[in-house]
Amino acid sequence: MEFFEDASTTREEILAAAYEALCRHGYSDLTVEKIGDHFEKSTSLVYHHYDGKDELLLACLEFVLDRYDETFAEAESGEPRARLEEPLAVFLVSELPDEQFRFMRALVELRAQAAHDERYREYFTRSDRLFQARLTELVEAGVDAGAFRDVDPEAVAATIQTVLAGALVRTTTSNDDEWLEAVREEVIACLEARLYRPDGA
Amino acid sequence: MEFFEDASTTREEILAAAYEALCRHGYSDLTVEKIGDHFEKSTSLVYHHYDGKDELLLACLEFVLDRYDETFAEAESGEPRARLEEPLAVFLVSELPDEQFRFMRALVELRAQAAHDERYREYFTRSDRLFQARLTELVEAGVDAGAFRDVDPEAVAATIQTVLAGALVRTTTSNDDEWLEAVREEVIACLEARLYRPDGA
Repeated sequence: MEFFEDASTTREEILAAAYEALCRHGYSDLTVEKIGDHFEKSTSLVYHHYDGKDELLLACLEFVLDRYDETFAEAESGEPRARLEEPLAVFLVSELPDEQFRFMRALVELRAQAAHDERYREYFTRSDRLFQARLTELVEAGVDAGAFRDVDPEAVAATIQTVLAGALVRTTTSNDDEWLEAVREEVIACLEARLYRPDGA
Repeated sequence: MEFFEDASTTREEILAAAYEALCRHGYSDLTVEKIGDHFEKSTSLVYHHYDGKDELLLACLEFVLDRYDETFAEAESGEPRARLEEPLAVFLVSELPDEQFRFMRALVELRAQAAHDERYREYFTRSDRLFQARLTELVEAGVDAGAFRDVDPEAVAATIQTVLAGALVRTTTSNDDEWLEAVREEVIACLEARLYRPDGA
């Protein structure tokens, strides 16, 4: 619930309840009533602010995306390698914290809605572009600092993002997870072979 | 419909109808009645063979997985690099054939069911293991032939599979696809830097 620690307005409290209910029940079993159970005030207030489950969840996703982006922007500048490997250490690990795992599992369900719901498709298009831009900046910083070889930062960023998207879907929809640590090590070995300069910072 | 060209039994004809209806309507809008519309005989026969939509779709997935595996086993032995890059050429391309795109999009929806349905989770665990085993064999063959460096074949295979899974989910749930070709080129550049021996076949 770190995204919603400072929830102060009714709207933010509703979004916090939606997040909590989503992590708890997943998408397919979720109803506005169940979201209301996680909200201290009346469920009718939820209906007053949002037309339905999907409007509310999309607003919740927007809120979380904004917070992610703020966290990213606030991140202390560090060594390019360490900063690039940070998302790998967060997403390519088995034994994820329970809340993070549940949110990731719900994200996979929500993302699948994009197959038939244009609103989700627009959201995930936008969120992919944002992560692509942030990862690209990290690679560019490494190239500019002389720590990384002179690669196409967009292509490296897109590839890392695709690995993370694959790990997210695989880990939340399969009973196996021993492959995750192997993938993280292999991705780092690839970065060493392809991106990092031997003498780079 | 290449998987079902030789459909001869009633059961296979039902699976072919399920596949066709799934590609056409996607998972969330699919009903046994709609599957029956793609079946030449009576819809009641579908109910006679399968208890419901999910049982039928799971049987359809099993059928497709078996066909994939046969295709894989029958593949002519070729140069290790060319064989390893074959799945990249199939899945990491924009402008996918329409039927393949629709089936991949439905697969993403079906995979998301694993978040709350153990039967789908078991299926995708098994299908991931099968692709892992096949990709591992390809990497091992390259190592044995001296074309690839002495890497951990399981880790390389798991990483390629994760990239493919990520590409599949991203391409079917986003409006952008210009990143796909960049990812394929970057993955091949990584394989060149990390896996292929400069003098290898």
